[in-house]
Amino acid sequence: MRLILVGLGTVGQAFIRVLAENEEQLRSSHRLPVHVVAIADSRGIAVSSKGLNLDLALKSKSETGSIGGYPGYGSFSPSERIPELISLTDADILVEVTPTNVVDAQPGLENILTALRSGKHVVTANKGALVVAFEEIEEEAGKRNLLVKFSGAVGGAVPTIDFVRSCLNGNRVLGIDGILNGTTNYILTRMCGEGCSFEEALAEAQKMGIAEANPSYDVDGIDTACKLLILANSVMGRRARLSDVKVAGIRGVTRQRAEAAARAGRCIRLIGSVSDTITVEPREISKEHPLCVDGVLNAVTYHTELAGDMTLVGRGAGGRETASALLRDVIHVSMLKAGGVR
Amino acid sequence: MRLILVGLGTVGQAFIRVLAENEEQLRSSHRLPVHVVAIADSRGIAVSSKGLNLDLALKSKSETGSIGGYPGYGSFSPSERIPELISLTDADILVEVTPTNVVDAQPGLENILTALRSGKHVVTANKGALVVAFEEIEEEAGKRNLLVKFSGAVGGAVPTIDFVRSCLNGNRVLGIDGILNGTTNYILTRMCGEGCSFEEALAEAQKMGIAEANPSYDVDGIDTACKLLILANSVMGRRARLSDVKVAGIRGVTRQRAEAAARAGRCIRLIGSVSDTITVEPREISKEHPLCVDGVLNAVTYHTELAGDMTLVGRGAGGRETASALLRDVIHVSMLKAGGVR
Repeated sequence: MRLILVGLGTVGQAFIRVLAENEEQLRSSHRLPVHVVAIADSRGIAVSSKGLNLDLALKSKSETGSIGGYPGYGSFSPSERIPELISLTDADILVEVTPTNVVDAQPGLENILTALRSGKHVVTANKGALVVAFEEIEEEAGKRNLLVKFSGAVGGAVPTIDFVRSCLNGNRVLGIDGILNGTTNYILTRMCGEGCSFEEALAEAQKMGIAEANPSYDVDGIDTACKLLILANSVMGRRARLSDVKVAGIRGVTRQRAEAAARAGRCIRLIGSVSDTITVEPREISKEHPLCVDGVLNAVTYHTELAGDMTLVGRGAGGRETASALLRDVIHVSMLKAGGVR
Repeated sequence: MRLILVGLGTVGQAFIRVLAENEEQLRSSHRLPVHVVAIADSRGIAVSSKGLNLDLALKSKSETGSIGGYPGYGSFSPSERIPELISLTDADILVEVTPTNVVDAQPGLENILTALRSGKHVVTANKGALVVAFEEIEEEAGKRNLLVKFSGAVGGAVPTIDFVRSCLNGNRVLGIDGILNGTTNYILTRMCGEGCSFEEALAEAQKMGIAEANPSYDVDGIDTACKLLILANSVMGRRARLSDVKVAGIRGVTRQRAEAAARAGRCIRLIGSVSDTITVEPREISKEHPLCVDGVLNAVTYHTELAGDMTLVGRGAGGRETASALLRDVIHVSMLKAGGVR
């Protein structure tokens, strides 16, 4: 299996690490030798038809800030060359993990479409491309009988999409409720449990690296809305757009409201829901509610036709967790490609 | 897809109902016409090479107590003829749902082995056969490249086995903790929440049809041990037997202990654990613990290597829930057989 990796931030580096650690296991139990034949980041490119040395790739990134420091390569601005690299390199799968951009989805969308048009499967954690152009991506893939897998985009390590596709055969998902953003869940857990204000909890999350310097994407509910939209479109067959999602974030949750909820044995959580409508808003639920998970956990409840409610809980974020989802997708594509199935 | 159904108790009847309700959907979205060509229960047999009328089969059962009342058939004692029926009938899958027997696994085990030896895939919810003879069943199936699926045996509607096989590719399960028996969980929920004694909560569960007249199988932890064993052997590759499981039930949980736990914001639950050892015992956990689910719910936590802990929560018992698991397995077998994959 020959991979191109585009994007070498937290997730891209974690993916290389997980790949390196599991190389032997992949070869023996899955009969799956994996070669990363090209890596690109925003400042450089490295290519080897026999497969790059993964340790050297990580070393180059940590020492020079780019894959361009890989022996024999130099840093330069490669953005316009990345589609060319994807198109011309002989590979089976593009692993696309450039930053999410929900405005025009670039550069992820062009990378993904270029891969599909040159006959490559795609594994991605890039929410922007899926939010902006899900139908176009599905259509390009369908035309060529290629696979697009995006387990890492929603729920991190929690297999929110594969669960429906592989584990609920014959059963319909009628609705979804989920905690899909670890940052806001951490802040709300602190507010309801320890009596922090929103500002205090946010500052703490930023200090811990759980929240960004500009926290809007998380705390205003946009990240949750994007993930919910990807779920609705991929596992419930909706054709919704981001503008169809009614979004309220958690800035309006006061310390008083959080404390009152806690005193009543309840908690406030930012819940995304797909029913007739698609909404994201802070809701008060009881401590016994399956979605009342603490800290940076994610949780998704599927309301199913034949089997009632099923809830999945696990670590939503983290480079290593998302990398494990990418690896799962790479293995899945390889098995289907080999005609091996499970 | 041609099915033989053996066993027509709560689960068998629910399976027929779910099949009848979803016939059209199966035909259209899965391109899967399903014909039940033979049904057997402990008192009769009905066969039709074109497929039995499912409504008439249910009517026969409710009016005469057996499938033997199906038009053109008569009740008789068919036990020795069922293996012959399985062996000689032209069918793709045996759906085996006779009662669980953990002593010698009969009649389920003979039915399952007969199906495999005559080239039929098996879908079953029969824990007895899997507990007593997992290796023999796997070996018989493996020799002939046949599938044995048993989603309904562990966790009812909750896809405890498929989750690992389909959703955790590339990730290893290092340990399992689970609430696998709804009856004991209901009793413990009542004891910890409402201050009932064990006897009161048990009597209530029996009145509601949640517990059997002879509750030993549930309250002494045997059912949990069987399910845990099936999980350990099937998703963690163990080769354990029932005698390897250290089992303690919930009869020893006093009202005092339950009330003390509740006062401390904790709860007692019957937890099955697979680590170096396999154990079933009542344990005190905090209300925030992911396994602290209420009522007849089931919950399983997988400790995974790459993705941390993942917990699955849903309805474990109930004819309809188990029937949905059987249907899922039938669809899965059909897809693999057709070379279609997901």
